[in-house]
Amino acid sequence: MKLDQNTRFLIVGLGLLGGSYAKALKKQGCTVEAVTRTQDSIDYALEQGIIDGGAAFPDPDIIGRADVVVLALYPEVLLGWVKENQRYFKSGALITDVTGVKGCVVYDLQAMLRQDVEFIAAHPMAGRETLGVRNADDGIFRGANYIVTPTDKNTPQAIEACEQLGRMLGFARISRLSPQDHDRMIGFVSQLTHCIAVTLMTCNDIEHLERYTGDSFRDLTRIAKINDEMWSQLFLANRPALLEQMDQFSAQFQKLRDQLAAGDTQAMRDMMRRSTLRRKAIEKQEERN
Amino acid sequence: MKLDQNTRFLIVGLGLLGGSYAKALKKQGCTVEAVTRTQDSIDYALEQGIIDGGAAFPDPDIIGRADVVVLALYPEVLLGWVKENQRYFKSGALITDVTGVKGCVVYDLQAMLRQDVEFIAAHPMAGRETLGVRNADDGIFRGANYIVTPTDKNTPQAIEACEQLGRMLGFARISRLSPQDHDRMIGFVSQLTHCIAVTLMTCNDIEHLERYTGDSFRDLTRIAKINDEMWSQLFLANRPALLEQMDQFSAQFQKLRDQLAAGDTQAMRDMMRRSTLRRKAIEKQEERN
Repeated sequence: MKLDQNTRFLIVGLGLLGGSYAKALKKQGCTVEAVTRTQDSIDYALEQGIIDGGAAFPDPDIIGRADVVVLALYPEVLLGWVKENQRYFKSGALITDVTGVKGCVVYDLQAMLRQDVEFIAAHPMAGRETLGVRNADDGIFRGANYIVTPTDKNTPQAIEACEQLGRMLGFARISRLSPQDHDRMIGFVSQLTHCIAVTLMTCNDIEHLERYTGDSFRDLTRIAKINDEMWSQLFLANRPALLEQMDQFSAQFQKLRDQLAAGDTQAMRDMMRRSTLRRKAIEKQEERN
Repeated sequence: MKLDQNTRFLIVGLGLLGGSYAKALKKQGCTVEAVTRTQDSIDYALEQGIIDGGAAFPDPDIIGRADVVVLALYPEVLLGWVKENQRYFKSGALITDVTGVKGCVVYDLQAMLRQDVEFIAAHPMAGRETLGVRNADDGIFRGANYIVTPTDKNTPQAIEACEQLGRMLGFARISRLSPQDHDRMIGFVSQLTHCIAVTLMTCNDIEHLERYTGDSFRDLTRIAKINDEMWSQLFLANRPALLEQMDQFSAQFQKLRDQLAAGDTQAMRDMMRRSTLRRKAIEKQEERN
Protein backbone atom coordinates (compact mmCIF):
# COMPACT_ATOMS: atom_id res chain seq x y z
CA MET A 1 0.00 0.00 0.00
CA LYS A 2 1.32 3.41 -0.98
CA LEU A 3 -0.13 6.32 0.97
CA ASP A 4 -1.12 9.43 -0.96
CA GLN A 5 -3.77 12.15 -1.16
CA ASN A 6 -6.42 9.58 -2.07
CA THR A 7 -5.81 7.58 1.11
CA ARG A 8 -8.73 7.80 3.56
CA PHE A 9 -7.61 7.93 7.19
CA LEU A 10 -9.64 7.12 10.28
CA ILE A 11 -8.51 8.37 13.68
CA VAL A 12 -9.94 6.32 16.55
CA GLY A 13 -9.74 8.46 19.69
CA LEU A 14 -9.56 12.16 18.93
CA GLY A 15 -7.33 13.33 21.79
CA LEU A 16 -4.08 15.24 21.77
CA LEU A 17 -2.21 12.71 19.61
CA GLY A 18 -5.15 11.67 17.44
CA GLY A 19 -5.95 15.32 16.79
CA SER A 20 -2.34 16.07 15.92
CA TYR A 21 -2.30 13.16 13.44
CA ALA A 22 -5.49 14.53 11.88
CA LYS A 23 -4.02 18.03 11.54
CA ALA A 24 -0.81 16.77 9.92
CA LEU A 25 -2.67 14.46 7.51
CA LYS A 26 -5.15 17.14 6.49
CA LYS A 27 -2.21 19.40 5.62
CA GLN A 28 -0.99 16.61 3.32
CA GLY A 29 -4.32 16.79 1.51
CA CYS A 30 -5.67 13.46 2.76
CA THR A 31 -9.24 12.71 3.80
CA VAL A 32 -9.44 12.25 7.57
CA GLU A 33 -12.40 11.04 9.60
CA ALA A 34 -12.62 10.26 13.30
CA VAL A 35 -14.61 8.28 15.81
CA THR A 36 -14.25 9.17 19.46
CA ARG A 37 -16.26 9.21 22.69
CA THR A 38 -17.47 12.80 22.91
CA GLN A 39 -19.49 14.78 20.40
CA ASP A 40 -17.76 17.95 21.58
CA SER A 41 -14.40 16.75 20.22
CA ILE A 42 -15.99 15.91 16.86
CA ASP A 43 -17.76 19.28 16.69
CA TYR A 44 -14.59 21.16 17.53
CA ALA A 45 -12.51 19.20 15.00
CA LEU A 46 -15.08 19.72 12.22
CA GLU A 47 -15.27 23.43 13.01
CA GLN A 48 -11.51 23.74 12.84
CA GLY A 49 -11.29 21.74 9.63
CA ILE A 50 -9.09 19.13 11.32
CA ILE A 51 -11.36 16.31 10.12
CA ASP A 52 -13.72 15.81 7.19
CA GLY A 53 -16.25 13.81 9.15
CA GLY A 54 -16.72 11.92 12.36
CA ALA A 55 -18.99 10.40 14.95
CA ALA A 56 -19.13 10.06 18.74
CA PHE A 57 -19.75 6.33 18.37
CA PRO A 58 -18.11 3.56 16.28
CA ASP A 59 -20.01 4.40 13.13
CA PRO A 60 -19.83 1.34 10.79
CA ASP A 61 -19.96 3.51 7.66
CA ILE A 62 -17.08 5.72 8.73
CA ILE A 63 -14.98 2.80 9.92
CA GLY A 64 -15.79 0.86 6.77
CA ARG A 65 -14.46 3.40 4.32
CA ALA A 66 -11.01 3.95 5.88
CA ASP A 67 -7.88 2.70 4.13
CA VAL A 68 -5.72 3.39 7.17
CA VAL A 69 -6.99 3.22 10.76
CA VAL A 70 -4.95 4.94 13.49
CA LEU A 71 -5.81 3.61 16.95
CA ALA A 72 -5.07 6.57 19.24
CA LEU A 73 -6.54 5.00 22.37
CA TYR A 74 -5.34 4.30 25.91
CA PRO A 75 -3.72 0.86 26.19
CA GLU A 76 -6.48 -0.53 28.44
CA VAL A 77 -9.28 0.05 25.96
CA LEU A 78 -7.40 -0.61 22.74
CA LEU A 79 -7.90 -4.35 22.42
CA GLY A 80 -11.54 -4.13 23.47
CA TRP A 81 -12.28 -1.53 20.83
CA VAL A 82 -10.74 -3.63 18.06
CA LYS A 83 -12.52 -6.77 19.26
CA GLU A 84 -15.89 -5.07 19.07
CA ASN A 85 -15.44 -3.07 15.91
CA GLN A 86 -13.07 -4.96 13.62
CA ARG A 87 -16.00 -6.44 11.77
CA TYR A 88 -16.50 -2.97 10.22
CA PHE A 89 -12.94 -2.64 8.86
CA LYS A 90 -12.63 -2.45 5.09
CA SER A 91 -10.95 -5.55 3.68
CA GLY A 92 -7.28 -4.78 3.07
CA ALA A 93 -7.21 -1.90 5.54
CA LEU A 94 -3.97 -1.05 7.30
CA ILE A 95 -4.33 -0.68 11.07
CA THR A 96 -1.71 1.15 13.14
CA ASP A 97 -1.55 2.67 16.61
CA VAL A 98 0.26 5.22 18.77
CA THR A 99 0.63 3.20 21.98
CA GLY A 100 3.69 3.87 24.12
CA VAL A 101 4.21 0.18 24.96
CA LYS A 102 4.20 -2.57 22.40
CA GLY A 103 4.72 -6.09 23.76
CA CYS A 104 1.42 -6.16 25.61
CA VAL A 105 -0.55 -4.89 22.61
CA VAL A 106 1.00 -6.04 19.35
CA TYR A 107 0.88 -9.84 19.69
CA ASP A 108 -2.60 -10.04 21.18
CA LEU A 109 -3.96 -7.65 18.61
CA GLN A 110 -2.37 -9.44 15.67
CA ALA A 111 -3.57 -12.80 17.02
CA MET A 112 -7.21 -11.78 17.21
CA LEU A 113 -7.32 -9.59 14.10
CA ARG A 114 -9.23 -10.54 10.96
CA GLN A 115 -6.99 -12.20 8.34
CA ASP A 116 -7.84 -9.70 5.60
CA VAL A 117 -6.49 -6.62 7.42
CA GLU A 118 -2.99 -5.97 8.82
CA PHE A 119 -1.89 -4.37 12.07
CA ILE A 120 1.52 -2.68 12.08
CA ALA A 121 2.43 -1.00 15.35
CA ALA A 122 4.15 2.37 15.67
CA HIS A 123 5.15 4.68 18.48
CA PRO A 124 5.21 8.40 17.67
CA MET A 125 7.51 9.80 20.37
CA ALA A 126 5.78 13.11 20.79
CA GLY A 127 3.45 14.48 23.38
CA ARG A 128 2.48 17.37 25.55
CA GLU A 129 1.52 17.96 29.18
CA THR A 130 -1.97 18.76 27.97
CA LEU A 131 -4.95 16.71 26.90
CA GLY A 132 -7.59 16.65 24.24
CA VAL A 133 -8.08 17.66 20.63
CA ARG A 134 -8.17 21.34 21.57
CA ASN A 135 -4.46 21.09 22.36
CA ALA A 136 -3.65 19.13 19.20
CA ASP A 137 -0.63 20.48 17.33
CA ASP A 138 1.20 18.70 14.53
CA GLY A 139 4.25 20.83 15.38
CA ILE A 140 5.01 18.31 18.14
CA PHE A 141 6.23 15.86 15.46
CA ARG A 142 8.94 18.19 14.14
CA GLY A 143 12.38 17.02 15.24
CA ALA A 144 10.82 14.00 16.97
CA ASN A 145 11.37 10.23 16.68
CA TYR A 146 8.98 7.66 15.26
CA ILE A 147 9.50 3.96 15.92
CA VAL A 148 7.89 1.17 13.91
CA THR A 149 7.77 -2.19 15.73
CA PRO A 150 7.06 -4.97 13.22
CA THR A 151 6.64 -8.65 14.06
CA ASP A 152 7.13 -11.64 11.76
CA LYS A 153 3.42 -11.44 10.95
CA ASN A 154 3.95 -8.12 9.15
CA THR A 155 4.46 -7.74 5.42
CA PRO A 156 7.26 -5.56 4.04
CA GLN A 157 4.55 -3.48 2.33
CA ALA A 158 2.81 -2.65 5.61
CA ILE A 159 6.10 -1.81 7.33
CA GLU A 160 6.98 0.54 4.52
CA ALA A 161 3.55 2.17 4.50
CA CYS A 162 3.83 2.72 8.25
CA GLU A 163 7.23 4.34 7.87
CA GLN A 164 5.82 6.50 5.10
CA LEU A 165 3.08 7.60 7.50
CA GLY A 166 5.81 8.70 9.94
CA ARG A 167 7.39 10.82 7.21
CA MET A 168 4.01 12.32 6.20
CA LEU A 169 3.44 13.33 9.82
CA GLY A 170 6.74 15.21 9.79
CA PHE A 171 8.91 13.10 12.10
CA ALA A 172 12.66 13.71 11.96
CA ARG A 173 13.87 10.14 12.44
CA ILE A 174 12.08 6.88 11.62
CA SER A 175 13.45 3.69 13.19
CA ARG A 176 12.53 0.02 13.46
CA LEU A 177 12.71 -2.03 16.65
CA SER A 178 11.22 -5.34 17.71
CA PRO A 179 8.39 -4.91 20.25
CA GLN A 180 10.68 -6.24 23.01
CA ASP A 181 13.60 -3.94 22.16
CA HIS A 182 11.16 -1.06 21.89
CA ASP A 183 9.72 -1.70 25.34
CA ARG A 184 13.15 -1.97 26.91
CA MET A 185 14.24 1.25 25.19
CA ILE A 186 11.06 3.10 26.12
CA GLY A 187 11.29 1.82 29.70
CA PHE A 188 14.55 3.72 29.79
CA VAL A 189 14.17 6.92 27.74
CA SER A 190 10.52 7.63 28.46
CA GLN A 191 9.05 5.75 31.42
CA LEU A 192 12.08 5.92 33.72
CA THR A 193 12.33 9.67 33.10
CA HIS A 194 8.70 10.12 34.11
CA CYS A 195 9.29 8.03 37.27
CA ILE A 196 12.24 10.26 38.13
CA ALA A 197 10.31 13.49 37.58
CA VAL A 198 7.38 12.33 39.72
CA THR A 199 9.75 11.17 42.46
CA LEU A 200 11.67 14.45 42.44
CA MET A 201 8.47 16.47 42.67
CA THR A 202 7.12 14.44 45.59
CA CYS A 203 10.15 13.46 47.71
CA ASN A 204 9.69 16.36 50.14
CA ASP A 205 7.19 19.05 51.17
CA ILE A 206 9.33 22.14 50.58
CA GLU A 207 7.10 25.11 49.75
CA HIS A 208 7.73 28.11 47.48
CA LEU A 209 10.16 26.20 45.31
CA GLU A 210 9.63 28.79 42.57
CA ARG A 211 11.83 31.21 44.53
CA TYR A 212 14.81 28.91 44.50
CA THR A 213 14.65 26.82 41.37
CA GLY A 214 17.00 27.18 38.43
CA ASP A 215 16.62 25.84 34.91
CA SER A 216 17.81 22.41 35.99
CA PHE A 217 14.92 21.81 38.38
CA ARG A 218 12.42 23.23 35.90
CA ASP A 219 13.76 20.96 33.16
CA LEU A 220 13.72 17.83 35.31
CA THR A 221 10.16 18.39 36.54
CA ARG A 222 8.43 19.63 33.38
CA ILE A 223 7.02 16.12 32.86
CA ALA A 224 6.10 15.84 36.58
CA LYS A 225 2.77 17.35 35.47
CA ILE A 226 1.55 14.00 34.32
CA ASN A 227 -1.59 12.31 33.00
CA ASP A 228 -1.90 9.83 35.88
CA GLU A 229 -4.50 7.63 34.16
CA MET A 230 -2.48 7.10 31.00
CA TRP A 231 0.97 6.80 32.57
CA SER A 232 -0.06 4.37 35.30
CA GLN A 233 -1.48 2.18 32.53
CA LEU A 234 1.70 2.50 30.48
CA PHE A 235 3.89 1.67 33.50
CA LEU A 236 1.86 -1.44 34.32
CA ALA A 237 1.79 -2.50 30.69
CA ASN A 238 5.59 -2.50 30.67
CA ARG A 239 6.20 -3.60 34.23
CA PRO A 240 9.16 -6.03 33.88
CA ALA A 241 11.14 -3.76 31.51
CA LEU A 242 10.47 -0.66 33.59
CA LEU A 243 11.39 -2.36 36.86
CA GLU A 244 14.68 -3.43 35.30
CA GLN A 245 15.42 0.14 34.21
CA MET A 246 14.45 1.54 37.62
CA ASP A 247 16.73 -0.92 39.38
CA GLN A 248 19.61 -0.15 37.04
CA PHE A 249 19.13 3.57 37.66
CA SER A 250 18.93 3.02 41.43
CA ALA A 251 22.16 1.03 41.47
CA GLN A 252 24.04 3.72 39.55
CA PHE A 253 22.56 6.48 41.73
CA GLN A 254 23.68 4.59 44.82
CA LYS A 255 27.17 4.33 43.33
CA LEU A 256 27.37 8.10 42.94
CA ARG A 257 26.01 8.53 46.46
CA ASP A 258 28.70 6.26 47.88
CA GLN A 259 31.44 8.03 45.93
CA LEU A 260 30.26 11.31 47.43
CA ALA A 261 30.04 9.84 50.94
CA ALA A 262 33.58 8.52 50.57
CA GLY A 263 34.82 11.84 49.17
CA ASP A 264 36.04 10.03 46.06
CA THR A 265 36.41 13.06 43.78
CA GLN A 266 38.15 11.10 41.04
CA ALA A 267 35.34 8.54 40.74
CA MET A 268 32.69 11.29 40.67
CA ARG A 269 34.58 13.20 38.00
CA ASP A 270 34.99 10.03 35.94
CA MET A 271 31.24 9.44 36.02
CA MET A 272 30.58 13.08 35.13
CA ARG A 273 32.99 12.94 32.21
CA ARG A 274 31.33 9.79 30.88
CA SER A 275 27.97 11.52 31.29
CA THR A 276 29.21 14.55 29.35
CA LEU A 277 30.58 12.40 26.51
CA ARG A 278 27.36 10.40 26.18
CA ARG A 279 25.20 13.53 26.20
CA LYS A 280 27.40 15.22 23.60
CA ALA A 281 27.16 12.13 21.37
CA ILE A 282 23.37 12.46 21.30
CA GLU A 283 23.59 16.13 20.34
CA LYS A 284 26.09 15.42 17.57
CA GLN A 285 23.90 12.70 16.10
CA GLU A 286 20.82 14.93 16.28
CA GLU A 287 22.66 17.67 14.40
CA ARG A 288 23.62 15.23 11.67
CA ASN A 289 19.99 14.34 11.00
CA MET B 1 25.99 51.64 50.41
CA LYS B 2 23.76 52.50 47.49
CA LEU B 3 24.87 51.14 44.14
CA ASP B 4 24.68 53.44 41.13
CA GLN B 5 26.54 54.42 37.96
CA ASN B 6 29.45 55.74 39.98
CA THR B 7 30.01 52.41 41.70
CA ARG B 8 33.23 50.69 40.59
CA PHE B 9 32.94 46.93 40.30
CA LEU B 10 35.70 44.36 40.29
CA ILE B 11 35.05 40.88 38.93
CA VAL B 12 37.49 38.30 40.29
CA GLY B 13 37.46 35.33 37.89
CA LEU B 14 36.28 36.24 34.41
CA GLY B 15 34.49 33.04 33.43
CA LEU B 16 30.95 32.43 32.27
CA LEU B 17 29.30 33.94 35.36
CA GLY B 18 31.88 36.67 36.02
CA GLY B 19 31.66 37.72 32.38
CA SER B 20 27.87 37.77 32.50
CA TYR B 21 27.99 39.98 35.62
CA ALA B 22 30.37 42.32 33.80
CA LYS B 23 28.08 42.53 30.75
CA ALA B 24 25.00 43.30 32.84
CA LEU B 25 26.78 45.92 34.95
CA LYS B 26 28.31 47.66 31.94
CA LYS B 27 24.80 47.95 30.47
CA GLN B 28 23.81 49.70 33.70
CA GLY B 29 26.55 52.26 33.04
CA CYS B 30 28.86 51.12 35.84
CA THR B 31 32.64 50.90 35.67
CA VAL B 32 33.74 47.28 35.66
CA GLU B 33 37.26 45.89 35.97
CA ALA B 34 38.43 42.31 36.26
CA VAL B 35 41.29 40.21 37.48
CA THR B 36 41.54 36.64 36.26
CA ARG B 37 44.11 33.97 35.42
CA THR B 38 44.48 34.28 31.68
CA GLN B 39 45.40 37.31 29.60
CA ASP B 40 43.27 35.95 26.77
CA SER B 41 40.07 36.41 28.80
CA ILE B 42 41.05 39.99 29.66
CA ASP B 43 41.92 40.78 26.03
CA TYR B 44 38.64 39.36 24.77
CA ALA B 45 36.59 41.22 27.41
CA LEU B 46 38.33 44.53 26.67
CA GLU B 47 37.83 44.04 22.93
CA GLN B 48 34.14 43.36 23.44
CA GLY B 49 33.73 46.31 25.81
CA ILE B 50 32.61 43.98 28.61
CA ILE B 51 35.18 45.50 31.02
CA ASP B 52 36.90 48.85 31.35
CA GLY B 53 40.19 47.41 32.53
CA GLY B 54 41.75 44.27 33.89
CA ALA B 55 44.80 42.19 34.58
CA ALA B 56 45.81 38.53 34.45
CA PHE B 57 47.19 38.79 37.99
CA PRO B 58 45.84 40.27 41.26
CA ASP B 59 46.79 43.84 40.42
CA PRO B 60 46.81 45.87 43.69
CA ASP B 61 45.78 49.08 41.91
CA ILE B 62 42.76 47.50 40.24
CA ILE B 63 41.68 45.67 43.40
CA GLY B 64 42.25 48.79 45.48
CA ARG B 65 39.86 51.03 43.56
CA ALA B 66 36.80 48.72 43.58
CA ASP B 67 33.74 49.64 45.67
CA VAL B 68 32.18 46.23 45.10
CA VAL B 69 34.17 43.03 44.58
CA VAL B 70 32.42 40.02 43.03
CA LEU B 71 34.28 36.78 43.74
CA ALA B 72 33.38 34.57 40.76
CA LEU B 73 35.80 31.77 41.61
CA TYR B 74 35.57 28.01 42.12
CA PRO B 75 34.89 27.13 45.78
CA GLU B 76 38.30 25.50 46.30
CA VAL B 77 40.31 28.60 45.41
CA LEU B 78 37.99 31.26 46.84
CA LEU B 79 39.27 31.45 50.41
CA GLY B 80 42.90 31.25 49.29
CA TRP B 81 42.43 34.17 46.90
CA VAL B 82 40.87 36.37 49.60
CA LYS B 83 43.55 35.41 52.13
CA GLU B 84 46.31 36.48 49.78
CA ASN B 85 44.75 39.58 48.31
CA GLN B 86 42.44 41.11 50.88
CA ARG B 87 45.19 43.51 51.93
CA TYR B 88 44.53 45.36 48.64
CA PHE B 89 40.78 45.87 49.23
CA LYS B 90 39.65 49.49 49.56
CA SER B 91 38.47 50.26 53.07
CA GLY B 92 34.67 50.06 53.18
CA ALA B 93 34.47 47.82 50.11
CA LEU B 94 31.58 45.40 49.77
CA ILE B 95 32.62 41.85 48.89
CA THR B 96 30.15 39.37 47.44
CA ASP B 97 30.37 36.04 45.59
CA VAL B 98 28.54 33.69 43.25
CA THR B 99 29.33 30.37 44.94
CA GLY B 100 26.72 27.63 44.67
CA VAL B 101 27.25 26.43 48.28
CA LYS B 102 27.35 28.75 51.23
CA GLY B 103 27.96 27.09 54.62
CA CYS B 104 31.50 26.05 53.75
CA VAL B 105 32.43 29.50 52.44
CA VAL B 106 30.55 32.25 54.28
CA TYR B 107 31.60 31.69 57.89
CA ASP B 108 35.28 31.04 57.16
CA LEU B 109 35.48 33.99 54.85
CA GLN B 110 33.77 36.37 57.28
CA ALA B 111 35.97 35.13 60.13
CA MET B 112 39.22 35.84 58.33
CA LEU B 113 38.17 39.04 56.55
CA ARG B 114 39.54 42.48 57.44
CA GLN B 115 37.26 44.37 59.83
CA ASP B 116 36.85 47.40 57.53
CA VAL B 117 35.27 45.52 54.62
CA GLU B 118 32.11 43.39 54.58
CA PHE B 119 31.37 40.08 52.89
CA ILE B 120 27.76 39.39 51.96
CA ALA B 121 27.18 36.10 50.16
CA ALA B 122 24.82 35.62 47.21
CA HIS B 123 23.93 32.81 44.85
CA PRO B 124 22.85 33.81 41.35
CA MET B 125 20.91 30.75 40.17
CA ALA B 126 21.86 30.96 36.55
CA GLY B 127 24.31 29.07 34.41
CA ARG B 128 25.01 27.37 31.15
CA GLU B 129 26.53 24.12 29.95
CA THR B 130 29.40 26.16 28.56
CA LEU B 131 32.49 27.74 30.07
CA GLY B 132 34.44 30.94 29.88
CA VAL B 133 33.95 34.63 29.20
CA ARG B 134 33.39 33.96 25.49
CA ASN B 135 30.08 32.34 26.44
CA ALA B 136 29.10 35.08 28.87
CA ASP B 137 25.52 36.30 28.43
CA ASP B 138 23.61 38.48 30.86
CA GLY B 139 20.39 37.09 29.34
CA ILE B 140 20.84 34.07 31.63
CA PHE B 141 19.69 36.22 34.58
CA ARG B 142 16.29 37.02 33.05
CA GLY B 143 13.53 35.09 34.79
CA ALA B 144 16.07 33.56 37.18
CA ASN B 145 16.36 33.47 40.97
CA TYR B 146 18.94 35.23 43.15
CA ILE B 147 19.44 34.23 46.76
CA VAL B 148 21.20 36.37 49.36
CA THR B 149 22.47 34.43 52.38
CA PRO B 150 23.26 36.85 55.22
CA THR B 151 24.68 35.89 58.62
CA ASP B 152 24.43 37.83 61.89
CA LYS B 153 27.72 39.48 60.98
CA ASN B 154 26.07 41.30 58.09
CA THR B 155 24.72 44.85 58.24
CA PRO B 156 21.25 45.68 56.86
CA GLN B 157 22.98 48.10 54.47
CA ALA B 158 25.14 45.39 52.96
CA ILE B 159 22.19 43.00 52.63
CA GLU B 160 20.21 45.67 50.83
CA ALA B 161 23.08 46.59 48.54
CA CYS B 162 23.50 42.92 47.65
CA GLU B 163 19.80 42.61 46.84
CA GLN B 164 20.05 45.76 44.75
CA LEU B 165 22.91 44.13 42.83
CA GLY B 166 20.58 41.22 42.07
CA ARG B 167 18.01 43.63 40.64
CA MET B 168 20.67 45.49 38.60
CA LEU B 169 21.74 42.18 37.09
CA GLY B 170 18.16 41.57 35.96
CA PHE B 171 17.07 38.68 38.21
CA ALA B 172 13.34 38.00 38.43
CA ARG B 173 13.13 37.00 42.10
CA ILE B 174 15.41 38.01 44.97
CA SER B 175 15.17 35.95 48.17
CA ARG B 176 16.96 35.66 51.51
CA LEU B 177 17.92 32.40 53.17
CA SER B 178 20.33 31.50 55.96
CA PRO B 179 23.45 29.71 54.63
CA GLN B 180 22.16 26.42 56.11
CA ASP B 181 18.68 26.73 54.58
CA HIS B 182 20.28 27.73 51.30
CA ASP B 183 22.52 24.68 51.23
CA ARG B 184 19.65 22.34 52.02
CA MET B 185 17.52 23.97 49.32
CA ILE B 186 20.31 23.91 46.74
CA GLY B 187 21.13 20.32 47.65
CA PHE B 188 17.61 19.60 46.48
CA VAL B 189 16.81 21.87 43.53
CA SER B 190 20.24 22.06 41.98
CA GLN B 191 22.72 19.42 43.14
CA LEU B 192 20.29 16.49 43.35
CA THR B 193 19.04 17.28 39.84
CA HIS B 194 22.61 17.16 38.51
CA CYS B 195 23.19 13.83 40.31
CA ILE B 196 20.06 12.46 38.66
CA ALA B 197 21.02 13.66 35.19
CA VAL B 198 24.52 12.19 35.45
CA THR B 199 23.12 8.91 36.75
CA LEU B 200 20.53 8.70 33.97
CA MET B 201 23.15 9.34 31.31
CA THR B 202 25.53 6.69 32.65
CA CYS B 203 23.32 3.89 34.00
CA ASN B 204 23.59 1.82 30.81
CA ASP B 205 25.56 1.55 27.56
CA ILE B 206 22.69 1.82 25.07
CA GLU B 207 23.93 3.33 21.82
CA HIS B 208 22.17 5.60 19.30
CA LEU B 209 19.84 7.01 21.92
CA GLU B 210 19.16 9.96 19.62
CA ARG B 211 16.94 7.71 17.50
CA TYR B 212 14.63 6.89 20.37
CA THR B 213 14.58 9.85 22.73
CA GLY B 214 11.66 12.16 23.22
CA ASP B 215 11.59 15.59 24.84
CA SER B 216 11.49 14.05 28.31
CA PHE B 217 14.88 12.35 27.99
CA ARG B 218 16.39 15.43 26.36
CA ASP B 219 15.08 17.63 29.19
CA LEU B 220 16.31 15.35 31.95
CA THR B 221 19.80 15.02 30.52
CA ARG B 222 20.50 18.56 29.31
CA ILE B 223 22.55 19.16 32.49
CA ALA B 224 24.26 15.75 32.13
CA LYS B 225 26.83 17.69 30.09
CA ILE B 226 28.53 18.88 33.21
CA ASN B 227 31.64 20.78 34.34
CA ASP B 228 33.10 17.91 36.34
CA GLU B 229 35.72 20.02 38.12
CA MET B 230 33.26 22.59 39.44
CA TRP B 231 30.40 20.25 40.27
CA SER B 232 32.52 17.68 42.10
CA GLN B 233 33.78 20.55 44.25
CA LEU B 234 30.25 21.83 44.85
CA PHE B 235 29.01 18.33 45.76
CA LEU B 236 31.84 17.81 48.25
CA ALA B 237 31.38 21.28 49.71
CA ASN B 238 27.75 20.41 50.50
CA ARG B 239 28.18 16.73 51.28
CA PRO B 240 25.86 16.24 54.31
CA ALA B 241 22.95 18.22 52.81
CA LEU B 242 23.31 16.57 49.41
CA LEU B 243 23.54 13.06 50.87
CA GLU B 244 20.33 13.74 52.79
CA GLN B 245 18.57 14.87 49.62
CA MET B 246 19.89 11.89 47.66
CA ASP B 247 18.67 9.47 50.32
CA GLN B 248 15.25 11.12 50.45
CA PHE B 249 14.97 10.87 46.68
CA SER B 250 16.09 7.22 46.73
CA ALA B 251 13.49 6.31 49.34
CA GLN B 252 10.68 7.91 47.35
CA PHE B 253 11.90 6.31 44.11
CA GLN B 254 11.95 2.92 45.82
CA LYS B 255 8.36 3.54 46.98
CA LEU B 256 7.21 4.12 43.41
CA ARG B 257 9.16 1.04 42.31
CA ASP B 258 7.43 -1.11 44.93
CA GLN B 259 4.00 0.27 44.00
CA LEU B 260 4.69 -0.71 40.39
CA ALA B 261 5.98 -4.16 41.37
CA ALA B 262 2.83 -4.71 43.44
CA GLY B 263 0.59 -3.42 40.64
CA ASP B 264 -0.82 -0.80 43.02
CA THR B 265 -2.34 1.52 40.42
CA GLN B 266 -4.11 3.65 42.99
CA ALA B 267 -0.92 4.44 44.91
CA MET B 268 0.93 5.28 41.70
CA ARG B 269 -1.85 7.57 40.55
CA ASP B 270 -1.94 9.29 43.95
CA MET B 271 1.76 10.03 43.72
CA MET B 272 1.36 11.29 40.15
CA ARG B 273 -1.52 13.54 41.14
CA ARG B 274 0.50 15.01 44.00
CA SER B 275 3.37 15.51 41.58
CA THR B 276 1.08 17.30 39.12
CA LEU B 277 -0.32 19.60 41.81
CA ARG B 278 3.12 20.54 43.13
CA ARG B 279 4.45 21.23 39.62
CA LYS B 280 1.42 23.35 38.76
CA ALA B 281 1.88 25.37 41.97
CA ILE B 282 5.40 26.34 40.87
CA GLU B 283 4.13 27.46 37.46
CA LYS B 284 1.33 29.53 38.99
CA GLN B 285 3.71 31.29 41.34
CA GLU B 286 6.16 31.96 38.52
CA GLU B 287 3.39 33.54 36.45
CA ARG B 288 2.45 35.81 39.35
CA ASN B 289 5.95 37.22 39.58
